[in-house]
Amino acid sequence: MQTPFPTGQAVRLACRTGAWTTPTTGLAPGYEQANLVILPREHAFDFLLFCRRNPRPCPLLDVTDPGDPEPRDAAPGADLRTDLPKYRVWSKGEVAAEPMEITNLWRDDWVSFLIGCSFTFEHAMLAGGLPVRHIEQGRNVPMYDTNIACRPAGRFAGPLVVSMRPMTPEQAIRAEEICERFPNSHGGPVHVGDPERIGIRDISRPEYGDPVDIRRGEVPVFWACGVTPQAALRRAGLTVAVTHAPGHMFLSDLRGGESGEATKG
Amino acid sequence: MQTPFPTGQAVRLACRTGAWTTPTTGLAPGYEQANLVILPREHAFDFLLFCRRNPRPCPLLDVTDPGDPEPRDAAPGADLRTDLPKYRVWSKGEVAAEPMEITNLWRDDWVSFLIGCSFTFEHAMLAGGLPVRHIEQGRNVPMYDTNIACRPAGRFAGPLVVSMRPMTPEQAIRAEEICERFPNSHGGPVHVGDPERIGIRDISRPEYGDPVDIRRGEVPVFWACGVTPQAALRRAGLTVAVTHAPGHMFLSDLRGGESGEATKG
Repeated sequence: MQTPFPTGQAVRLACRTGAWTTPTTGLAPGYEQANLVILPREHAFDFLLFCRRNPRPCPLLDVTDPGDPEPRDAAPGADLRTDLPKYRVWSKGEVAAEPMEITNLWRDDWVSFLIGCSFTFEHAMLAGGLPVRHIEQGRNVPMYDTNIACRPAGRFAGPLVVSMRPMTPEQAIRAEEICERFPNSHGGPVHVGDPERIGIRDISRPEYGDPVDIRRGEVPVFWACGVTPQAALRRAGLTVAVTHAPGHMFLSDLRGGESGEATKG
Repeated sequence: MQTPFPTGQAVRLACRTGAWTTPTTGLAPGYEQANLVILPREHAFDFLLFCRRNPRPCPLLDVTDPGDPEPRDAAPGADLRTDLPKYRVWSKGEVAAEPMEITNLWRDDWVSFLIGCSFTFEHAMLAGGLPVRHIEQGRNVPMYDTNIACRPAGRFAGPLVVSMRPMTPEQAIRAEEICERFPNSHGGPVHVGDPERIGIRDISRPEYGDPVDIRRGEVPVFWACGVTPQAALRRAGLTVAVTHAPGHMFLSDLRGGESGEATKG
């Protein structure tokens, strides 16, 4: 696959200058893509505990010091205020705006969390001959709320959110083998086959992202998703919070499959 | 080795009733032993971040909700106010008291952290034919401040603290093989051989615990130690904090070598 952005840094610079404003699926193969959550310090302990208690949807790649917009572990020199293609600004549990940067909003007590993303292993799926339908169709990945509850922590609680990629059952087995090598990017699927079993009533209407075609002989395959904290933010109703817009990820300098908490000890 | 306490729960009950008030080395073989740190909620985020940034000395086994004295992951039903043999109450960076329980001090905003301990793998060392000198000599393990700096987080910073067990160089290699199977109990040694190299000037005068004999042909072998947070607490100077007394650990229900963060995701 050709890409104009061979590295995470190249994607960040394109976002910073406003040259890239759309989803990041397929960009910078091999680099760890990350979900972003920014919260006032007063809520940071509860949220860090929420991530600790829900490691499958929330594998932490980096946590910044309060007020520091630079993720020093995941991408030294990067700026979390400008280096994503699109943000969501949350006010009392609702999305109040979707700006391209948040420099003017930044506050000294804000703590940033970077959480692994399944976009990271899509290049390995493609290299292994597996389909990634939303890339084929030029869309954002479909994401759904489920009936699987996260373990709560303080004000944070809510459903597991999943991403979906359709494929044949044989391909799903191969996908599991590949994705288990990426524990910091959610690892293998959490469910294969029956959307209703995990509380998804209409597979053609994802809560986040775009629907994609499911072809004859294919089943939907679901992965834990780093949008899970956004479902928790909706319930928590904090005065202010910032996240990435779903599908519009932060590109780190970490290499997928070898990065993050598990290998940094 | 005979022990009157075959399980973690048996040790906890003996501590709760006041029947056991001394170090826990050698007790309840196979159960994960744990260091304890209790802090007011306002400092909990910084401390959780400190543990995240220093996973070798601070592998987290459990983090409680504020005000909850029960470690629901590590030992459901246990009570962190009574179930350790001896505590340290810290005031402004100094040890103010070493009580046998802390029920009357407990506050609704206290958060408890349980951190893995190298006592957990000593039974495996003994089973592998390796010496554990402080058990042989009926003493507490010797522990030392080093010149290796931890990564800071907020108010928490300070030196890595290590525990020491003397053995021959051949035995040290075998110890490394055994202990690497216990990543939640600090894993393999951080240094073998030269105390001065890591800033220890007098091996016969440990900062914590008791000195032990080093015999002809033996070298000191050092492991990262969960007393590291106590060195950080000394510097942080919080109004109040509580820890275990060094060597006087919490016995969990987790089985050493298979428990904790790495395997709970």
